[in-house]
Amino acid sequence: MMSNQTPLRGLGEFQLIQEITKSLPTGGSIVAAGDDTAVLPYTKNKYQLITTDMLIEGVHFTADTPATKIGAKALNVNISDIASMGGRPKFAVVSIGLPAGQTLGYVRKIYQGLRRSAEAFNIGIVGGDTTRSARVVINITLTGDVDKRRVIRRDGARPGHLIFTTGRLGGSLASGRHLTFKPRLAEAQYLVQSIRPSAMIDCSDGLAADLGHILKASGCGAVLYETKIPCHRNATIKQALEDGEDFELIFTVPGKRAARLMNEKHARFKFYPIGEVTDGGYWLIKTNDQKIALTPTGYNHFK
Amino acid sequence: MMSNQTPLRGLGEFQLIQEITKSLPTGGSIVAAGDDTAVLPYTKNKYQLITTDMLIEGVHFTADTPATKIGAKALNVNISDIASMGGRPKFAVVSIGLPAGQTLGYVRKIYQGLRRSAEAFNIGIVGGDTTRSARVVINITLTGDVDKRRVIRRDGARPGHLIFTTGRLGGSLASGRHLTFKPRLAEAQYLVQSIRPSAMIDCSDGLAADLGHILKASGCGAVLYETKIPCHRNATIKQALEDGEDFELIFTVPGKRAARLMNEKHARFKFYPIGEVTDGGYWLIKTNDQKIALTPTGYNHFK
Repeated sequence: MMSNQTPLRGLGEFQLIQEITKSLPTGGSIVAAGDDTAVLPYTKNKYQLITTDMLIEGVHFTADTPATKIGAKALNVNISDIASMGGRPKFAVVSIGLPAGQTLGYVRKIYQGLRRSAEAFNIGIVGGDTTRSARVVINITLTGDVDKRRVIRRDGARPGHLIFTTGRLGGSLASGRHLTFKPRLAEAQYLVQSIRPSAMIDCSDGLAADLGHILKASGCGAVLYETKIPCHRNATIKQALEDGEDFELIFTVPGKRAARLMNEKHARFKFYPIGEVTDGGYWLIKTNDQKIALTPTGYNHFK
Repeated sequence: MMSNQTPLRGLGEFQLIQEITKSLPTGGSIVAAGDDTAVLPYTKNKYQLITTDMLIEGVHFTADTPATKIGAKALNVNISDIASMGGRPKFAVVSIGLPAGQTLGYVRKIYQGLRRSAEAFNIGIVGGDTTRSARVVINITLTGDVDKRRVIRRDGARPGHLIFTTGRLGGSLASGRHLTFKPRLAEAQYLVQSIRPSAMIDCSDGLAADLGHILKASGCGAVLYETKIPCHRNATIKQALEDGEDFELIFTVPGKRAARLMNEKHARFKFYPIGEVTDGGYWLIKTNDQKIALTPTGYNHFK
C-alpha cells in the first residue's frame, strides 16, 4: 500500500486513477470509473455514455494558443471518447474558469470554437458553470448513447484478431495537431455498423499505452510491425508509439471481418493494419526483424 | 453590444453567462444553458437532469481547507442543484487537477469526502479525468432524473404566491458553513410530492439574487419582510440578502397550499415564509416599516 506522503509526481496517472477509483460507489453503472467513458442504464435498447475532460492553461495549452482552438479541442476530446465506445454524442455541459483580467473577446472565441464543433457533430450545449481562476481552465462533460448490441469496450480482443488504426501517429503536440484534430466519429460509426470491432479505444496517451489498455482489459498480448505503423511526416516510430494526443482510433477485428475491412472497394475511410493480438507478451518487430519489448506506459501528467 | 476588449471584471457573472450562451445549439433540450440544471428528454415519464460545478483553490477554498470538505462540497453543490429542480441525483463524473507536489494522502481525503456524500445520497461515481495543475481544481458533473409532472422550474411564480426558505441565511463563507452544508434533497422531495411549489431555486448567489432569478423568469415582483427572514447567528439581514453559498431552497407556493405547509403538524422539516410574490417591484419591508428597494444581484466572481 502506498503511503499518504507519496507525492503525485512519484505515481503514474494510471496508478493514481487506480488509487482513487478503488472503492467508489458505482450506483448500478455497467462500466464505471477507470474507463474514459462510463456506460449507464438508459432505455430498453440503448445505454447512456458519459465522459469528461479537463484542459488547463500551462498544461494542455498556453496563453498564446488561439482561443477558438481551445474551445474546439475541449469538446473534440470528449467526442473522441464517445466515438471509441461506438456511441453518438448528444449533450454537453461546459465549466470554465477565467482570469478577471481576460477579455470578453477571448471568451467569445473559446465559445466560437466550441459552437463550431457542437454544430458539426450535432451536439446541444445545455449548461455550465463560470468562475474566476488565475489560469484558464475548461472542463466539458459530454453525454451520448449507443445501441446495447453495438457498444464496444476494451476487453473484447482475442489472440489472432488484427490491430488497426484510423490514421497516422506521432508528433501531435509538436506539430499543433493536438489542437486541430477531427474526432473519428464517422469512422467509428462505420466500424460499429459494418465491421463490429472486438475492442476499440482512442489514442490519447500514445499507441503503446492505449493498445496496452485494450490488452490488459482483454488479457492478451500483441505484436506490432514497425513497417506497418503509419507515422506522421517528421515523426519517428518512437513518437508514434509514445506521444499522446493523436486521437486516432485503435481497434481490433477478428480475422474474417479484418480481411473484409482491408479488401473493401470504394471505402470512404482509410484503416491501417499494424499488428496482431497474441496470447501474451508485447512486442515491436523492427524493420530489421529485431524484436523489441514494448511497455504499455504513456505520457505521465505528473512528471 | 459589448466590445471584445471589455475585461471580465467589468462584467457581472450573469452578463457573462448571457453573452456566452446566446447562440449555442441546444440540441432539443427542454431547458438549456443559462439555468443551473439542464432538463433533457429521457424516458416517457421522466426528464434527465444534468448540472456541473467547478471549484478552484484560491477562489472557493484555500490550501488550508480540509480536503475531505472540498470533496464533499464539490458533490453537494451539484446535489443541491438537482434537488432544486425536484429531481433525484444518480451518477457523477469527477475531473480533478492536482499539483505534482501534492501528496497521495491529500487526494485520498478529497475522495473520502466525495465518497461519503455519494453514499449518503445514493450516487454512483462512474468516471472522471485527472490532470496536473498549478492549483487544485475539481469539477463534478451530476446527472439526475425527475418525474415530468413534478419538475420545478424558475418561471412558475405568480402574484399572491408565498415565498419560503428551508433554513437560516447569511454568513456562510465567514462561518465555514459553505463547506459543510447538507443539500436539501429530502426537503425538496417532500415539497415536490406534497406541496408542489410553483418555482424553486437553491440559494447559492444570495437570497436577493436567487429569488431575483425566479422573479425575472416568472415576470413578477416580490416583497420580503425583514422580521420574517431567518438569519444565522452573527449574520445581519444584509448578509442574509447578499451573501451566497447558503444552499437553502427558496421556493414559492400558491396561497392554499402555502397555508397547508404552515399548518401541518408533525412536519419533519422547518419552512420559513419570508414574503410574497407581487405584480412588480422588489422590496424589503424593514422592521420599522421602511420600504427598501432590493437589487437582484449577488456575488460577482470576477471582481
